[in-house]
Amino acid sequence: MKYVYKFSEGSGSMRELLGGKGANLAEMVNLGLPVPQGFTVTTEACERYYQDGEFVAPDVRDQVMEYLSWLEQESGKTFGGAGGPLLVSVRSGSRASMPGMMDTILNLGMNDAVAEGLCKLTGNPRFVYDSYRRFIMMFSDVVMELPRHAFEVIIDKMKEARGVKLDTELNTDDMKELVAGFKAFYKESKGADFPQEPRDQLMASVAAVFRSWNNNRAIVYRRENDIPSSWGTAVNVQSMVFGNMGDDSGTGVAFSRNPSTGEPKLYGEFLMNAQGEDVVAGIRTPQTIDQLRDVMPEVYEQFTSIVAKLEKHYKDMQDMEFTIERGKLYMLQTRNGKRTAQAALQIAIDMVGEGVWSKEDALLKVDPKQLDALLHPTFEPKALKEAVPAAKALPASPGAACGRVCFTADAAKNEAKNGPVLLVRKETSPEDIEGMIAAQGILTARGGMTSHAAVVARGMGTCCVAGCGECVIHEDGGYLMIGQTRVNAGDFMSIDGTTGNVYIGAIPTVEAEITGNFNTFMGWADEVRTLKVRTNADTPQDARQAISFGAEGIGLTRTEHMFFEHDRIGPMREMILSASEEERRKALDKLLPMQVKDFEGIFTAMGARPVTIRLLDPPLHEFLPQKAEDIKSLAADMGLSEQTLKDRIDSLHEFNPMMGHRGCRLAVSYPEIAEMQARAIIRAAVNVKRATGTDLVPEIMIPLIGDVNEMKFVKGIVQKAAEEELAGFALKYMIGTMIEIPRAALTADEIAKEAEFFSFGTNDLTQMTFGFSRDDAGAFLEDYYKRKIYENDPFARLDQTGVGQLVKMAVDLGRKGRPGIKLGICGEHGGDPSSVEFCFNAGLDYVSCSPFRVPIARLAAAQAKIKAKG
Amino acid sequence: MKYVYKFSEGSGSMRELLGGKGANLAEMVNLGLPVPQGFTVTTEACERYYQDGEFVAPDVRDQVMEYLSWLEQESGKTFGGAGGPLLVSVRSGSRASMPGMMDTILNLGMNDAVAEGLCKLTGNPRFVYDSYRRFIMMFSDVVMELPRHAFEVIIDKMKEARGVKLDTELNTDDMKELVAGFKAFYKESKGADFPQEPRDQLMASVAAVFRSWNNNRAIVYRRENDIPSSWGTAVNVQSMVFGNMGDDSGTGVAFSRNPSTGEPKLYGEFLMNAQGEDVVAGIRTPQTIDQLRDVMPEVYEQFTSIVAKLEKHYKDMQDMEFTIERGKLYMLQTRNGKRTAQAALQIAIDMVGEGVWSKEDALLKVDPKQLDALLHPTFEPKALKEAVPAAKALPASPGAACGRVCFTADAAKNEAKNGPVLLVRKETSPEDIEGMIAAQGILTARGGMTSHAAVVARGMGTCCVAGCGECVIHEDGGYLMIGQTRVNAGDFMSIDGTTGNVYIGAIPTVEAEITGNFNTFMGWADEVRTLKVRTNADTPQDARQAISFGAEGIGLTRTEHMFFEHDRIGPMREMILSASEEERRKALDKLLPMQVKDFEGIFTAMGARPVTIRLLDPPLHEFLPQKAEDIKSLAADMGLSEQTLKDRIDSLHEFNPMMGHRGCRLAVSYPEIAEMQARAIIRAAVNVKRATGTDLVPEIMIPLIGDVNEMKFVKGIVQKAAEEELAGFALKYMIGTMIEIPRAALTADEIAKEAEFFSFGTNDLTQMTFGFSRDDAGAFLEDYYKRKIYENDPFARLDQTGVGQLVKMAVDLGRKGRPGIKLGICGEHGGDPSSVEFCFNAGLDYVSCSPFRVPIARLAAAQAKIKAKG
Repeated sequence: MKYVYKFSEGSGSMRELLGGKGANLAEMVNLGLPVPQGFTVTTEACERYYQDGEFVAPDVRDQVMEYLSWLEQESGKTFGGAGGPLLVSVRSGSRASMPGMMDTILNLGMNDAVAEGLCKLTGNPRFVYDSYRRFIMMFSDVVMELPRHAFEVIIDKMKEARGVKLDTELNTDDMKELVAGFKAFYKESKGADFPQEPRDQLMASVAAVFRSWNNNRAIVYRRENDIPSSWGTAVNVQSMVFGNMGDDSGTGVAFSRNPSTGEPKLYGEFLMNAQGEDVVAGIRTPQTIDQLRDVMPEVYEQFTSIVAKLEKHYKDMQDMEFTIERGKLYMLQTRNGKRTAQAALQIAIDMVGEGVWSKEDALLKVDPKQLDALLHPTFEPKALKEAVPAAKALPASPGAACGRVCFTADAAKNEAKNGPVLLVRKETSPEDIEGMIAAQGILTARGGMTSHAAVVARGMGTCCVAGCGECVIHEDGGYLMIGQTRVNAGDFMSIDGTTGNVYIGAIPTVEAEITGNFNTFMGWADEVRTLKVRTNADTPQDARQAISFGAEGIGLTRTEHMFFEHDRIGPMREMILSASEEERRKALDKLLPMQVKDFEGIFTAMGARPVTIRLLDPPLHEFLPQKAEDIKSLAADMGLSEQTLKDRIDSLHEFNPMMGHRGCRLAVSYPEIAEMQARAIIRAAVNVKRATGTDLVPEIMIPLIGDVNEMKFVKGIVQKAAEEELAGFALKYMIGTMIEIPRAALTADEIAKEAEFFSFGTNDLTQMTFGFSRDDAGAFLEDYYKRKIYENDPFARLDQTGVGQLVKMAVDLGRKGRPGIKLGICGEHGGDPSSVEFCFNAGLDYVSCSPFRVPIARLAAAQAKIKAKG
Repeated sequence: MKYVYKFSEGSGSMRELLGGKGANLAEMVNLGLPVPQGFTVTTEACERYYQDGEFVAPDVRDQVMEYLSWLEQESGKTFGGAGGPLLVSVRSGSRASMPGMMDTILNLGMNDAVAEGLCKLTGNPRFVYDSYRRFIMMFSDVVMELPRHAFEVIIDKMKEARGVKLDTELNTDDMKELVAGFKAFYKESKGADFPQEPRDQLMASVAAVFRSWNNNRAIVYRRENDIPSSWGTAVNVQSMVFGNMGDDSGTGVAFSRNPSTGEPKLYGEFLMNAQGEDVVAGIRTPQTIDQLRDVMPEVYEQFTSIVAKLEKHYKDMQDMEFTIERGKLYMLQTRNGKRTAQAALQIAIDMVGEGVWSKEDALLKVDPKQLDALLHPTFEPKALKEAVPAAKALPASPGAACGRVCFTADAAKNEAKNGPVLLVRKETSPEDIEGMIAAQGILTARGGMTSHAAVVARGMGTCCVAGCGECVIHEDGGYLMIGQTRVNAGDFMSIDGTTGNVYIGAIPTVEAEITGNFNTFMGWADEVRTLKVRTNADTPQDARQAISFGAEGIGLTRTEHMFFEHDRIGPMREMILSASEEERRKALDKLLPMQVKDFEGIFTAMGARPVTIRLLDPPLHEFLPQKAEDIKSLAADMGLSEQTLKDRIDSLHEFNPMMGHRGCRLAVSYPEIAEMQARAIIRAAVNVKRATGTDLVPEIMIPLIGDVNEMKFVKGIVQKAAEEELAGFALKYMIGTMIEIPRAALTADEIAKEAEFFSFGTNDLTQMTFGFSRDDAGAFLEDYYKRKIYENDPFARLDQTGVGQLVKMAVDLGRKGRPGIKLGICGEHGGDPSSVEFCFNAGLDYVSCSPFRVPIARLAAAQAKIKAKG
């Protein structure tokens, strides 16, 4: 088994084996660019390392040593030899860019004897001991896990003692003293001398790279970016070139186009007489790449021609590192550059304009998830970089928000006049709606991705972080605690609904802005895709918002949110607490005209686009009052004693509400509810068709079906009411069901005989298939990620193995039961790119997602189509 | 389409079409027995009736009329003719005996003119008006749904006025007056005259029979007896013969063997000068069938020879109805007789002894569910017949119990010294255990089939009715209310854990008794069956009990119940509420020796039989104290403030505990718990093997697996602990999983690679597949039965369409992943006969059920094997 490749043995197509960095180094070598020689230890060696129980096997070590010998020959230097010592850098490099992994180690191979020899050879002892102290610090930090901070303290003390500000102001003796100080600290901490044998340094570093593949940061990053843990990382070992050999040396980073705006112009920075991280560390202020033209015109010219060559070769914006050693340019790395969403669109449009990309290429180049940043406020990137999250919870609704903390909806409403506020609640309830509208963002201590706060916030496009158990809220005291830190009402906090991060203090935000580029680009997506994109919308406002984002219909209108409104909740509660069908019908009669209005609004907003309306779904007790005063006033309204009302409320208590009396089960027990809703839908449709002449076709969706007999029964109720309402008026309507119970998927052929459409409710289907509730899983999912049992949140990304199998089964059986049955998805997964691709491949007709995810779904649908063709 | 058959056109094999009664009448006609002529309207006509929207179609009516004409010709009488009038009886008759359906109507065809004519013909006006008043009452009650009671009141008033006690003491004028009174009441109630047209009477009766197929009683009966609603009922129309024509006439019922004891001797009763229900109505005391020998020796002789012929023909004990009209014997019905469990075994053993049945025949003839009655106390049949249930709830643990109501465990313990007590609680908790042991039966107002009360009661074999929401318990006041009725502590109540019925007052019970017949019969079952039967047992007592019932191993030991015991709950709570792994390990160290003892006890009781022990399964908060004083004392024990402890308890709150942090998820978060349990199991096994030399092979079962990675992780923990405990000692052990999450079934091939056995946890699998929790479904399942959406409780009888599909899938995938994998079931379904048959056909190796259901499972397994061969 070959575990090591010279750069010249590799190529750009060998990413899987050599990692991205290794493959690109090989490619640059093949292009004849000035790259210091080196070799790559493969990702298979990493796999082997884990198979062997986190141990580098002798045969892997032997191959590394063999290639090291080759590198010695090639360079004419000796590893650990004082005469002409070979120093190397060691870098991790996986198939995908993985910021979470191990940092670079430079100057490896250095020891006391090598340092002495190098001084003689270079006559530049300051450079030598500068390099040595850097190596000790990097090795100690990265390989031996000593705190980097401790080394920085030693440097700071010395600078203070010398009265200087910059590292470059320290002289040779200072550097020597630092090396001695670092070594002493190392010995003190580790109880052993700093390793002097370069081959031990090297193998320890290789193992550390492999180990870093599974550190916590890497695991979190992989989960957030859908990278499988099975890939592993490669290790790149490369001859050192030195940017810190004097004023004819330097080091820098550059992008072939501006990564923030996309402007097609070289962009970057460099520092003379510097090494490695000095450029980004901010110790000295770097010069812009343009200034290199003045400093070293020839090098600048060579560099710009290399940049052009690389962009042409890779057909994408490049992010490069280079070093100048005594006036000679070396390329250390190139890769496709990360870019902001705005830049991504600009580059895509420019590249198509330049004839480099086809439109399809351009569509594939933009990560759909990035579009979110164009639709929601984001944090200022610089400010964010410096901020440390105080807690992390569920990213319930994307965007960034910063404001003064309010603990009640009333406070939020009032304070919002004076500036941005953040509403912080244990959990929200329908009464909080005005405060929620007033707030920039919403933070809750309890509840999950489907909690009231989360669902309402997503609908409004307001940033929300939910279920933050680390926030202990003392509403009465007017403060909250995160760990030992107290935050008072009126203090600033910031939350990131895209990551779930919670920050104490203010982080400035940047508003979202939709440009012409956005519409051009999304237009290309629409030309390509065949999968339709609908939206989940409960109000005419949501519907209009979604249409502006390109929604082609509504896949899910949840009727329950309509009942939470102020004038509705009263009759709704009366309906629920009725002791007889007669009482219930009386309350329903009050609700009927309100529902008719709701649906008229939505139908009017949607015009001829299809609209799917789901009948009442949640357990009824969700609508009931909790507070003593609310119970009291409701009892008075209903002419009941408080005790009687309390008893009725108690009798609706459920052990597992998620698996209780909800969905179509409500319609089975109380057909009059389904009847009222069916009437309201049809009456509204008739009214709108009469008024506007629009030929709309309402789709009535029955939730939580698990058996064809349920479907038959509820369909019967709905049909009867609908026909009575129509009284012969010509209006087409459809009756279908959600597939969200495993048994519905297993018996979809029977159900399809009664249902004109299926909409996959993958939220509930995921819950039932995995057997855990989204609201409760927070307590243990972190442990699952930590132990690598799960790599993804199955509620964010559709589990194709388990849940996907049921979806496919239901698609096949559904088409068997009713050829041409309309199939869609309305779970949260409808806005997740990988899940959208799955839905396309499974043969669904449409996906439906919250308004702000519509553009993501459109792009993902286009990408899925292009990939399927390819 | 032929909807009507003469008796002589049918045969005994046409049960599906003609119903049981019709087929048997046809068969008796074919055997040449004296049967009054008639015809049967088929079950297909019933189906047609429902297809046509509860309407008797003209072509069906035409056929009935055609056969009526034939009957007129055959009998030489005219329907509705005053000259020689034909009177008929109308009886329902479905494929299976269905007590819930419509009662018989006799003397149909009677009207004022016919009565006059009959008087002339028979010269017996008392007989005629007796027949007429009976007809009016039966028709009004059964067809027109007038209250039977109202007619009885009219009779009672007349008897009071006449100063007589028996109907037979009323004279002709009295009968005429009754007819007039009945007709007047009919007109008053219905606003129309009693129907005089015999053909209308007939068709109304036929429709009423069809309708009665779907009355509530019939639906409940079908559900309890696994009869599909699609079968429908036939209608039998038969020429009347009259047992009330004087002292040379009579009517009776008889069994060919004693239905209570099985004694092979004719058994029955008759009444002279009587009709229909008089025999069973208890108005006059009937004579025993032996006395018929003295009253009418020739008839008796004829009858006994017919009985012998019928038993020989049907090869089973017969239940017959006969009428003697003016000295001539007519057979009206025969069918296989219902019998007590005791009689069923006696008859089975006698029939085999007589060479009538093979052992396999005998095994098929006994309903496995009947065996329950041999193992638990039952109500005295006569007393039960008179008792009216005050409420109905979940039949949580079978048997009958009667005792004085106690509202606390302490009271139950104390009062039990003075006589039988019934423990009545809102719900039970571990602290109630002594009261539960002392009580004859347990009744709870809340909680389902898996509540603490239900599970503990089933284990002990104590009768339990759970979740009786109609019982409003006022523990402090020392009383409960059922509707408007108050029951005080110390009053008698009775409960039936087999049906879920709750009675106010005392119903005497009969103790269970296991006879030699039982062991002989079960021995036959064991000879035949290949499916193994294990038990679910948590204690050595349960284990021994189950072995005495024939269990061949333990399929499920739930370790959680062990922690509820008094000396355990303290350290268990400390463990749960630990803030660190270190604290948790300290508490686990206290539990370890206790668990070792638990398992030693079970292993010792089971000997070399296989024992499956499941690791901790329920959500941890189930173990936590609720009451303020318990929290206070626990806080003191743990050295925490009450507030801190309350906060920790609160933090364990779950929205849907069923879908929360439980099962293997606990082991993922807290591997040290699984480690402790694995150590305890292996240490106990080693100790027992060392002490006794028994070669036992413990099976360690990991619950709630949904992904192979979970299995790998927890298996790793268990294996490591086990190997450390063994330290080289030779003991085989297995590690497997429950399949109870849909995703586990869908990915069973992968999971089987890591699991040495699967045990289907069909309770949870049913919950997840249907998407409702057993504890909450009570609120709506009744509506589902009422609307005929479900015909069975899927928690009692395995849903073969949905859940069964997942089971089969997992069996196939499991065997693919690991050929020869051991497969069993440990859900409640393991004790349900139809589910046992499914498990056998699905290819499982064993079923496991609670100790008292082991005999049921053994017999069901034998029947499944026999049926599969046939």
